[in-house]
Order: sequence, then structure tokens, then C-alpha cells
Amino acid sequence: MKLKDMYTFVKNDLNGIESELERSVHSTHPLLQQSGSNLLRAGGKRIRPVFVLLAAQYGRYDAQKVKKAAAALELIHMATLVHDDVVDDADMRRGKKTIKSQYDDKVAMYVGDFIFARALQLMTEVKEPAAHQLLAHGIKEMCLGEIQQIKEQFDTNQNVRHYFRRIKRKTALLIALSCQLGAIASGAPVPIQRKLYQFGYNAGMAFQLTDDILDFTSSEKELGKPAGGDLQQGNLTLPALYAMGAVPGLKKRIEEYYRGSGDLALILSEVKNSGGIEHASRVAAAYLQKAVSAANGLPEHAARSSLLKIAGYIGRRKF
Amino acid sequence: MKLKDMYTFVKNDLNGIESELERSVHSTHPLLQQSGSNLLRAGGKRIRPVFVLLAAQYGRYDAQKVKKAAAALELIHMATLVHDDVVDDADMRRGKKTIKSQYDDKVAMYVGDFIFARALQLMTEVKEPAAHQLLAHGIKEMCLGEIQQIKEQFDTNQNVRHYFRRIKRKTALLIALSCQLGAIASGAPVPIQRKLYQFGYNAGMAFQLTDDILDFTSSEKELGKPAGGDLQQGNLTLPALYAMGAVPGLKKRIEEYYRGSGDLALILSEVKNSGGIEHASRVAAAYLQKAVSAANGLPEHAARSSLLKIAGYIGRRKF
Repeated sequence: MKLKDMYTFVKNDLNGIESELERSVHSTHPLLQQSGSNLLRAGGKRIRPVFVLLAAQYGRYDAQKVKKAAAALELIHMATLVHDDVVDDADMRRGKKTIKSQYDDKVAMYVGDFIFARALQLMTEVKEPAAHQLLAHGIKEMCLGEIQQIKEQFDTNQNVRHYFRRIKRKTALLIALSCQLGAIASGAPVPIQRKLYQFGYNAGMAFQLTDDILDFTSSEKELGKPAGGDLQQGNLTLPALYAMGAVPGLKKRIEEYYRGSGDLALILSEVKNSGGIEHASRVAAAYLQKAVSAANGLPEHAARSSLLKIAGYIGRRKF
Repeated sequence: MKLKDMYTFVKNDLNGIESELERSVHSTHPLLQQSGSNLLRAGGKRIRPVFVLLAAQYGRYDAQKVKKAAAALELIHMATLVHDDVVDDADMRRGKKTIKSQYDDKVAMYVGDFIFARALQLMTEVKEPAAHQLLAHGIKEMCLGEIQQIKEQFDTNQNVRHYFRRIKRKTALLIALSCQLGAIASGAPVPIQRKLYQFGYNAGMAFQLTDDILDFTSSEKELGKPAGGDLQQGNLTLPALYAMGAVPGLKKRIEEYYRGSGDLALILSEVKNSGGIEHASRVAAAYLQKAVSAANGLPEHAARSSLLKIAGYIGRRKF
């Protein structure tokens, strides 16, 4: 089953969100218009808005309001990607040139700021103060996550605790918030909001772990960016951190590579053969199991089946 | 009379805002803590928070809530300065090294994002949806202003309309919003909110015009950054735009300077002798007059006297 088939349940509203996103990045300024449209056309899984829509089914579903919130969450995600690419010096994403490589760092900074401002405008449709408090806290944590990443980039002395805190801040939190805000925006009961947050948090952790595994195991064509790019850019993920502990001399070889000498292909194959991929897969599966448990704690509802299907997809996805 | 003496009326609450700002930039992360504290210690006129406090006097003054809003506006301003310095490649501000020169563009991007996120957290104390709608719109416009500035930097074919739109977006809007949000947060009547917005907008235009004049007429010591820096960095302000129209050959000499040859000192003295400073001063005085008229349209109140005094200061300030 493909991801988009799991979205059937919310398909109409999801189309509405695409129009909302188009409207939001629309600008009379050609550079903004072009870079915004490129970002939208590059696609993405729209997991955050889908979670908003599904979670909102647990309350009084107000399509107009929920669509705005869902689009806002996707825009916040997009804005962080644009800033991420500056920090990571990334030239490609989803098979397209990044804004920072198409233009430069300064333009990427302001395109990110602009998209973020648009997200704030959409979020004003959601009047519940709790939604704004949680989101503001989440955005602050995401910033801390990026700063943490700058600091820990190329740092071979970090441990897995650093990694887990980083992916929590960078990915899991916003996905968890998408679930929680959908529930808040539709006035779902607090225990349900919490279960949905738990679902989103664990699904988000599994999602990022899977992403980090695929960066080693997929081809450049599947990824839309060079394989092994994380390690190359100094982003040390769980498979690499595991491998450094398991393979004698590997840590030293990675350090040498970061100093400018050494063979990336060799290092990548050592990581792949270290058992690090299998270890990360097991950890991802454990998070996924927690996500499934959280979803199973929710009242029966068509939305719950969709959440469970998406969680299943995250566990199986190959790109 | 010094600026801080005009703040007497709101002095206690303004001290409270300093503590709020300190708490907001506080972080267990050493880089964030240090760069945040440096930004605070570099000072600034705190005009935005003072306007929030004064405007809030026209409604039911809730010190706790208004202080949070006031600190939020100052933090938004600070965040934009940090991003500005990246766009302008500025090394000095208020006599201190900018974050981008102390660290690099990437760090400055994220420190700005972090401070902005902190501002959003504080703003959640203000529950009025109108406040958030206006602020989100304002932030979007500020982003557009920065993007406009990137595009118009070094563009000697721009006209004064571009300049006025730029300073509206970059400065006047946030100052106008500070006044309006203070009034909204305290539930002041809508006609008063509008008058306060008008006051802030016109005072903000005069403030930026004065800033742009002082960049030509002050010494490096007074400015805390090199004099003539705007022109040097390609930021063509009203005195320069006026001079290019009035002095034969000057436009060409500025273009040559931007291509790498030519004498900056000569160009600066030509701008100063062109009548451009006097022209910009007259425009600033006209905006100031409008600000005073708007304030005079407000009910009599100690806050009004303070607003008028601050407007007077803007018209006279020498740095």
C-alpha cells in the first residue's frame, strides 16, 4: 500500500491544504514566488498536516480551521528545512537544488523566515491559547536542536544520548505537536490529546531513525540526494555511532576523513557491515511499537486505522 | 532631557522588562547564553517596549501581561537585527561585534531563530486573537522588507518610493505595532488603538529617517559602527538618493565605487554637501509632525505626555 492511499480518509481536506500552501507561498515577489513553488512541487510526505487532520477527527471537526492549522505545521516544517540546508551546506533535497544552493545562504535565511511568518499567519485561525503555548515551546526546542546540531557536527566524541535528543528536537517534537494541535483545535478531550502526542512522538522518532538508516542503504536516485550524505556532512546518526563503537579503528578513520584524508566509500561500507543498520532498525521498531500502543489506547475510529496504517508505512518505507 | 528620563513614567515596569529579557535569552547552552547576554548588554533604546507600556495605559493596565508583550516586541526586534547583520555583512553594531562576525552566518541565523522563538513564547501571554493576526502580518512584512533590501542593495536605479517602502517594513511597522498591541493587550477602545498605531507608524518613519541621516553626520564613536556604513554596504538611503538626483556625476561615481574603484570619503562629502541631509531632515520633521498630531488626538493622560516627549527626542537625537 502506498502512503497516499492511506490518506484516502482525509483526501479531500488534504487537497484543500495543498491550495492553502500554494496561497501561502504566493508572493508578488518573483524570487519568493519561485522558491516557494519549487519547495511545494518538490513534494514531501505531508505527514504533519495529515496527522493534524486525523487527530482533529477526535473532536468537533471544523474543516476550515483544521486545514489552516495543518498547512501551518507543514510550512513550519518547510521553513526549518530551508534553514537546515544552510546549516548542513546541503545542495540537494528531494531531487531538487536547495534554495541555499540555487541562490545563497542569505536568501535561504529570509525565504525560511518568510515561510515561517506565513505559518504564523495561518496559525492565528486557531484561537486556543494552549495550542500557541505548545507550538512556541516546540519551535524553541527545534531551534535548540539545530544549534545542538551545529555544535555536534563532526564531533566523533558524542554519544547516542546526543543523537536521540537531537532527533527528538529536530523531528519527533513537531510531529507530536501536529497530532496534539489537531486534537486541541477540535476540542478533543485532554487524555486523547495526550495519547495523540505520544503516538506522534514515537512515530516521529521511528520516522527519523528510518530516514537516517535509509541515508546509508538507499541509492542516490531513491533519496534525491547523495547516499551517505549524513556522515559526509558531519551528521553522525545512530548507525554510524553504533559502528564507531563496534568496529576497531573506524572512529579514527572517520576523524581522518573529516580532516581531509580517507576513503568515504570504505567508511560507509564499514558502517553498513557493522550491525549498526540492524541496531538502528531494532530501535526504530521499538519506537514504532510504542506508537502503535498509544494509537491502540485511542477510542476506535476510522482516523485510528489511518494512524496505524501510516505508522506501519513508516516501519516499512524504503525511501 | 535624556531618553531614559522620559521613561520615568514607566520606569519600574521597564526594569521588569529587562529581567524578562534576561530570562528569555537565558539558556544552558553557552553559545546562546553568551550571544544573548551580549545583545542585551549592547543596549538599545528599548523604544518598542516603552511604547507597549505607554499605549497599554489607555486600557485596563495588567502589568504582568503587558510586560510579557513588551519584552516580546523587543526580542522580535533583536532577532531581526541579528538576521539583518547577516544580510548586511555588518561586523559592528552598537559598538560591539555582531554575532555573525563573532561566530558566523549560520550561528547568527539560529541565534536569531532562537530569540524569535522566545518572543513567540512570551506573546502567548496575550490572548487577544487580533494581536496575533496583526503581529503575524507585521512579521511577514518585515521579512518582505529584508528580501526587498537584498534585492535593492547596490541598486542605484531605485527611487525614493523603494526607500520609503523599505523603512516602513523594516522599522515603522514594528514600532506602530508596539503601540497598537499595547492598546489591544489592555483592551483600549479601537479608535484609540488606531491613533496609537498612527502615532507609532509616523514616529517610526521619523526614527529611521533620523538613523539614516546620522549614519552620514555622526562619528564612528557616536554610532558604534563606521560612519557612512549604509552607503558603503549598498544600503541607499534618502540622503544618498536625493544627492544622486542633485549632484551631476555622483550616481556614476557611486556605481564605480561599487565596482571597486573610487573614493568613499569624496562620495560621502558630496552627499553631505548636496542638500540631501537637509531634505531628509525636512521629511523626518513632517513625519514627526504627523506623529504629534496623532498623539494630540488621544485623550489627555500622563502616557500621552511621555509619547510626545519621546517623539520630540526622536526629532532632536544626535546618535
